[in-house]
Amino acid sequence: MKLLSFLVSILGLLAVCKATTYEYNIKTFNVLLDHFTFADNATFPIRYLMNDSYVTDKRSPIMFYTGNEGDIELFAQNTGFVWKAGIQLKAMIVFAEHRYYGKSLPFGNESYKDPQHLGYLTSEQALADFADLLEHLNPDRLRPVICFGGSYGGMLSAWMRMKYPHLVVGALASSAPVRQFTDVVPCDIFNRILTSVFRVAIENSPCVDNIKKLWPVLKNFSSTEEGRKYLSNEFKFCKPYNKTEDYDTFYAYLMDVFGNLAMANYPYEANFLAPLPAFPVRQFCGQLDKNFDKNEELLTAFNNALQVYSNYTQKTKCLDISSAYDESMGSLGWDFQACTEMVMPMCTTGSTDMFVPKKWDFAEYSTDCFKKFKVYPRERAAICQYGAFKFDMLSNVIFSNGLLDPWSGGGVLRTQSDAVTVVILPEGAHHLDLREDNKADPASIKATRTYYLKTFREWVDTYNN
Amino acid sequence: MKLLSFLVSILGLLAVCKATTYEYNIKTFNVLLDHFTFADNATFPIRYLMNDSYVTDKRSPIMFYTGNEGDIELFAQNTGFVWKAGIQLKAMIVFAEHRYYGKSLPFGNESYKDPQHLGYLTSEQALADFADLLEHLNPDRLRPVICFGGSYGGMLSAWMRMKYPHLVVGALASSAPVRQFTDVVPCDIFNRILTSVFRVAIENSPCVDNIKKLWPVLKNFSSTEEGRKYLSNEFKFCKPYNKTEDYDTFYAYLMDVFGNLAMANYPYEANFLAPLPAFPVRQFCGQLDKNFDKNEELLTAFNNALQVYSNYTQKTKCLDISSAYDESMGSLGWDFQACTEMVMPMCTTGSTDMFVPKKWDFAEYSTDCFKKFKVYPRERAAICQYGAFKFDMLSNVIFSNGLLDPWSGGGVLRTQSDAVTVVILPEGAHHLDLREDNKADPASIKATRTYYLKTFREWVDTYNN
Repeated sequence: MKLLSFLVSILGLLAVCKATTYEYNIKTFNVLLDHFTFADNATFPIRYLMNDSYVTDKRSPIMFYTGNEGDIELFAQNTGFVWKAGIQLKAMIVFAEHRYYGKSLPFGNESYKDPQHLGYLTSEQALADFADLLEHLNPDRLRPVICFGGSYGGMLSAWMRMKYPHLVVGALASSAPVRQFTDVVPCDIFNRILTSVFRVAIENSPCVDNIKKLWPVLKNFSSTEEGRKYLSNEFKFCKPYNKTEDYDTFYAYLMDVFGNLAMANYPYEANFLAPLPAFPVRQFCGQLDKNFDKNEELLTAFNNALQVYSNYTQKTKCLDISSAYDESMGSLGWDFQACTEMVMPMCTTGSTDMFVPKKWDFAEYSTDCFKKFKVYPRERAAICQYGAFKFDMLSNVIFSNGLLDPWSGGGVLRTQSDAVTVVILPEGAHHLDLREDNKADPASIKATRTYYLKTFREWVDTYNN
Repeated sequence: MKLLSFLVSILGLLAVCKATTYEYNIKTFNVLLDHFTFADNATFPIRYLMNDSYVTDKRSPIMFYTGNEGDIELFAQNTGFVWKAGIQLKAMIVFAEHRYYGKSLPFGNESYKDPQHLGYLTSEQALADFADLLEHLNPDRLRPVICFGGSYGGMLSAWMRMKYPHLVVGALASSAPVRQFTDVVPCDIFNRILTSVFRVAIENSPCVDNIKKLWPVLKNFSSTEEGRKYLSNEFKFCKPYNKTEDYDTFYAYLMDVFGNLAMANYPYEANFLAPLPAFPVRQFCGQLDKNFDKNEELLTAFNNALQVYSNYTQKTKCLDISSAYDESMGSLGWDFQACTEMVMPMCTTGSTDMFVPKKWDFAEYSTDCFKKFKVYPRERAAICQYGAFKFDMLSNVIFSNGLLDPWSGGGVLRTQSDAVTVVILPEGAHHLDLREDNKADPASIKATRTYYLKTFREWVDTYNN
């Protein structure tokens, strides 16, 4: 088993190396800090990645990835389907970095200093950046542009087609929770789906029940000095775990871990939100696949399970519970967006999910946002800007959702319009369809990618004729 | 003749009084100064006019006029068709004032002080104001919303459907020059059409030739003290006309007058850009319908013609050439918009039109804008934000244009989409179709209004089912 694990690990690293062979030039483009005022003309450079080696003529299309909350190179490495589409359609391939992420920082190190600096981190500004970049890359508009994005990037690609239909002929919005807003979908939907992903990972497994049992145990241990020492010894935290409230940090970290495990529950090893094995949820639950008599046994088994996420590389020396995210993901930036216009209500019931019940409380959320960022959220801003209920009035947008993805609950799962396509991937985790081809891909993913390419060709042909 | 003229004048005043019987409540609604940043949360109230007395149930539609560059009450008085549609469709009728016009001033008297105050006068911000207002008026979105607008207001109504298709089921964009941007239509198109309106006003008339002859005469007279005295005596300027350069002011004023005469060339007396008789261009040319041997005769005849525009009420004591616009039109605000994102290239050739040749020179225009407002125009901003070439990707938008309207050259005159309707009104001046019914309306206008109402009912029924 150890040897097998080692071999899997080596193969994993090879897979990572292979992924880095996507080739591009890194370029920059100046955009206005605030596109929507003439009170100030300040500009700053955003980054974009470009490969135009497949372009054959002036009407070759552009495959345009609308970057989301992270370093754009991370997305270029994890969105192999854009490369495949680019090669097959002889397209210019562009990955555009979202402002305030990666190296596209308007005020350098001070970008996150206060609302006066950070306040220009909005989706509308990012879309306007992309629009200006497209005008720059495609001044005569001879090239049909297809937008791509996964998750928030998918929201941006759908919104790009919505707001700039003259610049973008169509969009593939993969795993885009464009409906995950106040009063549109139930606040427990994410955690309900998340829990079901853990429930079905191994047939008839007590995995979910063990996770449910874990919370009071963790809380109890965290409430005494002796218990905290025990937990520290077991989990090997990087920072001292010596206050009752450290439980809150640990709980928040674990919530993110569960979400990330489900999102990245791919049928093969990958390094997206963290280096992870194939079917990481199954791997995780494999460690919790029996009943435990003692709390200590449960904690040990849970720690073993957690290693799947926190230490798949076997190089991690301690458990850092301050963030579940790789640093190339801009989780602070996303927190700000969630505290301003991307207000996505989340709650847990304890019955429909495996977590500790917690109601959605916008007033409390609002207060926390002000503490953290000195801003108050505009609860319905995204709904007003982009709508959230129906998307039937759009055209040439494909919304795809994997049913193994907790974000699918906030996605577009039905349409009454011929011009909007809904793709449901029963075996899909978070934007699996956007990843590069893999032998382990389920048949539905392969068929879907073929369908996408056919659709893109139709969009391109219609545009060019 | 004098008596007739007096009677016509009285009837005109009656017509004006009748128009004021449109009933509404004046309300205000707080909007964000900058919708697209969280660096600042300043708000201010915009005005809107509302009549909900025709509403029968919670699904009754909203007829929403997207206010343009002027006091919203002016548009409410001059857009009778919205009232007619509202009554027939049992709708809520709303006229929303555009920020920085009328009484919707973000900084009161200081709103126009400098770019730091005036810089938030942009179309995107105005659309976001309207979107927020619609969310406020229609929080459950049970009411289908139809947008209306004429001229720049028509551009806004089309763009409203483009950018906020989830809030607006359809739009009637009347005489909306959405294509009047750089490199989209020829810069002389406006003045070419304008000239043809004067050319066809009276069959085989020397009117246009007389106007062409006027310019060198005016310039010559303006270049000497004696000449300026003559002109002052003839035209009775309000302010001293005592410098050679006063000719430039006079010329600019007359260019606006010609444009306004053509725009408001309605088949009946009206008070839109100025109090004017029926067919004012014909009235104007009627004074120039012969050849003049002497320059002085030409000047006197021209002054008589000019009275049609400047003194139809017979109450004007002197000629104010500082502006051709009624003060309820926000011409300074529009100048700012034209100097920022609404860059509409204009030129004259002297051959295809009746004016003094002047090329479009963006660099010069830019310099003038900076002198006037301390801002530089963003030449392609509107094209990038809204497109300008094709509008076939929209749906439920009616673009109407009168061929007697100089702005029609920048309008949408063809479509390849079933979802976008183009209406050409051969006898129509500037958004004649939006005005109230009048016995003098040409048959094409009557038929068109019937068609609009039928289309609106279809939009509403589709939305409600």
